[in-house]
Amino acid sequence: MASYAIGVDFGSLSGRAVLVDTKTGEEIASSVYDYPHGVMDVKLPDGTPLGVDWALQYPKDYLDVFSNAIPDLLEKTGVDPAEVIGIGIDFTACTVLPVKADGTPICFLPDYESHPNAYVKLWKHHAAQKYATKLNETAEKMGEKFLQRYGGKISSEWMIPKLWQILEEDEAVYDEMDYFLEGADWIVWQLTGQQTRNSCTAGYKAIWHKREGYPSEEFFKALNPKLEHVVEEKLNCPVTPLGSKAGELSKKGAVLTGLCPGTAVAVGNVDAHVCVPAVGIDGPGKMLAIMGTSTCHILMGEEEKIVPGMCGVVEDGVLPGYFGYEAGQSCVGDHFAWFVEQCLPASYEREAAERGLDVHQLLTEKASALKVGESGLVALDWWNGNRSCLVDVDLTGMMVGMTLQTKPEEMYRALIEATAYGTRKIIETFRENGVPVEEFYASGGISQKNPMAMQIYADVIQMPVKIAGSAQGPALGAAIFGAVAAGKEKGGYDSVFEAARVMGKLKDVIYYPNEENSRVYDKLYQEYSILHDYFGRGENDVMKRLKEIKKSVK
Amino acid sequence: MASYAIGVDFGSLSGRAVLVDTKTGEEIASSVYDYPHGVMDVKLPDGTPLGVDWALQYPKDYLDVFSNAIPDLLEKTGVDPAEVIGIGIDFTACTVLPVKADGTPICFLPDYESHPNAYVKLWKHHAAQKYATKLNETAEKMGEKFLQRYGGKISSEWMIPKLWQILEEDEAVYDEMDYFLEGADWIVWQLTGQQTRNSCTAGYKAIWHKREGYPSEEFFKALNPKLEHVVEEKLNCPVTPLGSKAGELSKKGAVLTGLCPGTAVAVGNVDAHVCVPAVGIDGPGKMLAIMGTSTCHILMGEEEKIVPGMCGVVEDGVLPGYFGYEAGQSCVGDHFAWFVEQCLPASYEREAAERGLDVHQLLTEKASALKVGESGLVALDWWNGNRSCLVDVDLTGMMVGMTLQTKPEEMYRALIEATAYGTRKIIETFRENGVPVEEFYASGGISQKNPMAMQIYADVIQMPVKIAGSAQGPALGAAIFGAVAAGKEKGGYDSVFEAARVMGKLKDVIYYPNEENSRVYDKLYQEYSILHDYFGRGENDVMKRLKEIKKSVK
Repeated sequence: MASYAIGVDFGSLSGRAVLVDTKTGEEIASSVYDYPHGVMDVKLPDGTPLGVDWALQYPKDYLDVFSNAIPDLLEKTGVDPAEVIGIGIDFTACTVLPVKADGTPICFLPDYESHPNAYVKLWKHHAAQKYATKLNETAEKMGEKFLQRYGGKISSEWMIPKLWQILEEDEAVYDEMDYFLEGADWIVWQLTGQQTRNSCTAGYKAIWHKREGYPSEEFFKALNPKLEHVVEEKLNCPVTPLGSKAGELSKKGAVLTGLCPGTAVAVGNVDAHVCVPAVGIDGPGKMLAIMGTSTCHILMGEEEKIVPGMCGVVEDGVLPGYFGYEAGQSCVGDHFAWFVEQCLPASYEREAAERGLDVHQLLTEKASALKVGESGLVALDWWNGNRSCLVDVDLTGMMVGMTLQTKPEEMYRALIEATAYGTRKIIETFRENGVPVEEFYASGGISQKNPMAMQIYADVIQMPVKIAGSAQGPALGAAIFGAVAAGKEKGGYDSVFEAARVMGKLKDVIYYPNEENSRVYDKLYQEYSILHDYFGRGENDVMKRLKEIKKSVK
Repeated sequence: MASYAIGVDFGSLSGRAVLVDTKTGEEIASSVYDYPHGVMDVKLPDGTPLGVDWALQYPKDYLDVFSNAIPDLLEKTGVDPAEVIGIGIDFTACTVLPVKADGTPICFLPDYESHPNAYVKLWKHHAAQKYATKLNETAEKMGEKFLQRYGGKISSEWMIPKLWQILEEDEAVYDEMDYFLEGADWIVWQLTGQQTRNSCTAGYKAIWHKREGYPSEEFFKALNPKLEHVVEEKLNCPVTPLGSKAGELSKKGAVLTGLCPGTAVAVGNVDAHVCVPAVGIDGPGKMLAIMGTSTCHILMGEEEKIVPGMCGVVEDGVLPGYFGYEAGQSCVGDHFAWFVEQCLPASYEREAAERGLDVHQLLTEKASALKVGESGLVALDWWNGNRSCLVDVDLTGMMVGMTLQTKPEEMYRALIEATAYGTRKIIETFRENGVPVEEFYASGGISQKNPMAMQIYADVIQMPVKIAGSAQGPALGAAIFGAVAAGKEKGGYDSVFEAARVMGKLKDVIYYPNEENSRVYDKLYQEYSILHDYFGRGENDVMKRLKEIKKSVK
């Protein structure tokens, strides 16, 4: 009998469901459903205006993904719901919401419709910055060791600052909620009728540690006395390792999805981390770069090491039994998009239109014709700050080497190269701190669409670059976890390692480093490193001073 | 009786004659004549191909300017030739040619039609670089003190490298010529029938010094034994200070121009330097910036000082009795043109077209709306190397502070600001080395067309910026020297100082520094200075290393 798993990837603007054959990993069909409310950053559905840097969502939209996309998959393929053995989901993170004891979102309660703090705070909600800043200051003052697991800083995007914001800005919502949890865990709860919390978001976003738990009551009390027992009062649910079964589809969940009650459901997961098994990675030393507007690097190791500037290290944070490391570059595809929007001359736009090309294709064609080093340019990839290894949002962009002969394609290529140097810097930092990096995998839009960029990465990091076989990596990864939740007896797998080996996929193409190019890139990377340290490690804080001047005159 | 002077400005592609009222400085009419042969950089008129970096002209074209533009002026205005009391000319420099004893260009001799070295070498002829390099090495080895008067280096554009090239590459031409001289002096000779050499080109371009003369015979012999007596053999003519009368119009000169024999003719001058009296500058401490694709700074002082990185100091080099200092920025308008060609997005081009604006106007409008410091950007103005004060053609561009929000008008403004910082650096270097700079004047295209740039300059250098009253500064300056050559009795002036005060002109508008802007620019200039020294004075030679990598892969 055929057996299938469904993976559902909850993105920033839509949800995507994919039906996957558990025997082969073949993606049979997919269905996308746009969130009716999208990202709310100006006003609530009832017109209540939002402040600067707010970004909210409406939880009903997530349920609508299930009730639309899954029936669509079944209808398209004619697959019998009984043949679907498991469901897995992945979500943006840290995307969090306050709920009642039965899981009802506070924003569903009529009394709270006009309370911004009652809604889902999307990962890119940045209005909790002042709480993050105070939290970091307090943690440093108190000598909290957890800071070093997160590159020295808790981001304003993460759970505790977002939770604290509710208490400070809308205490009624704080008092009303029984739980504060990730969207990933909430949506799983809606399927199974039972709350779980996954080890990935708990570890990376909620300052939870498998052996040490959450920060101490003393620490929370120092933030605000009312937070002293916050873990017991609002986060009270055991943490379950990734790869576990969260439960089975409840009757309500079955009605919602059109699947059979009792179908296995995996614990929630995160869009980046869930991609790891989707490329077949089954152990340590293999770095996956998920390359989109920004890049997220996921790597496993056998030991917990403190690596300067990484985003986090979490036991069971990626695959069970390993320490999952995360690092990132804040601006990758965004660099190239900025360049095309702000710097691409009309003559290039015309040429692209005449030849029926996308402007990125045209630029790539011209940039591909350049020899390594021919442009004489080096850039720092900090147009949106530096996530790893400097963890400094106040750094900005820099480019050097321009002459009157400098062409757009040279600057475009220099920006791509800069992101490759940034990745090499991350790899070297892991290695220098005892975390081996032996293989390199790329997934995400850029890995699929830009062979020139992938060749540049191979030449710069001097490792073969293997490419994800699926353009829907997160959904495939989620389906893999769904198959594992079902277990071997039901036609799935007993471990995610086994499942990854069968269902994970790579493209046939591998980008191998070109020795000659690598030699030149070694020299250019040296230049990048000198500038990286000069501008990024305090020798010349011009970028920060310019930002201060900017603020002071605005 | 009315009295007029004619100034003729010999540019790179055309000559412009202007008829000026000597009583008021009013420009009555002007006439432009394009050189039929333009710049020859591919082949000679007979088809003989030219090498890389050659740039030649045909001297007959200069004569044609006289025979076309001056009669046109008289015809247009109905002015009686007898009312024209004097002629002055200015020329590009160093633009040089080999001639016979009677002034006949060697390239007019049928035997030499196919000899590139027989033609006029235009200022931007760069094919003598290897001779300049050897000359500098030799001068350094021999401890020649003249080097420091020229910022440590003789340029390949100057006279001795171009002369030496003839000897090395076409000895027949070298032997055939009786004189090697500037176009400025040759064209005056064609009017008067008598050779003169002006102190400006002799001093700035031919390594001549009023008290020390040309370099020694030992030095020339070290370059090539045959050059030992080159001064006596090829440059043998006394040097005449600017502001002197070269002679009077010969009969041949009168036929050529349609003017009366006996009309006073001033000694030749250079396009930049001749602008000084045209803005009314009559003494030391007043810097004139001639702002076009590049900027030339002219300043007079009472003493000879060695200022690091200036282009030259010459006694009588600008106005008689003073030491004329020259400095420069290699790339000013060229920066902005590069930006518009290579970086201006199609959406801006469309907006400009829809609103009937030039793209520079649109960018200026948007950039004007920015507060000082708001962009968070600082650039180094070295897209074409640095002429002063670092004298280093291998430096390149740099910009820092870009974010994903950075707009084209912010980068455009940052480039303009960078050139203003470069000018401030030059001013400060003069002051630090004992040459006062008390006033600032601007002429050239940018001074006339870009009020925003002029305000930025005023705010950055913290001096009022006075603007040339004439858009034809060089031709007006040349006419002033023509009126001085005529003398007071004939309706002119007995000194260029008097003439400058009456005939020199400024616009009514003066750009005064805005104190608030200046305070912010002080901070930004500090950042510029740190980066200037870091990239320009050897702390990080990344620009040079990138150029080497570029060369090595090409």
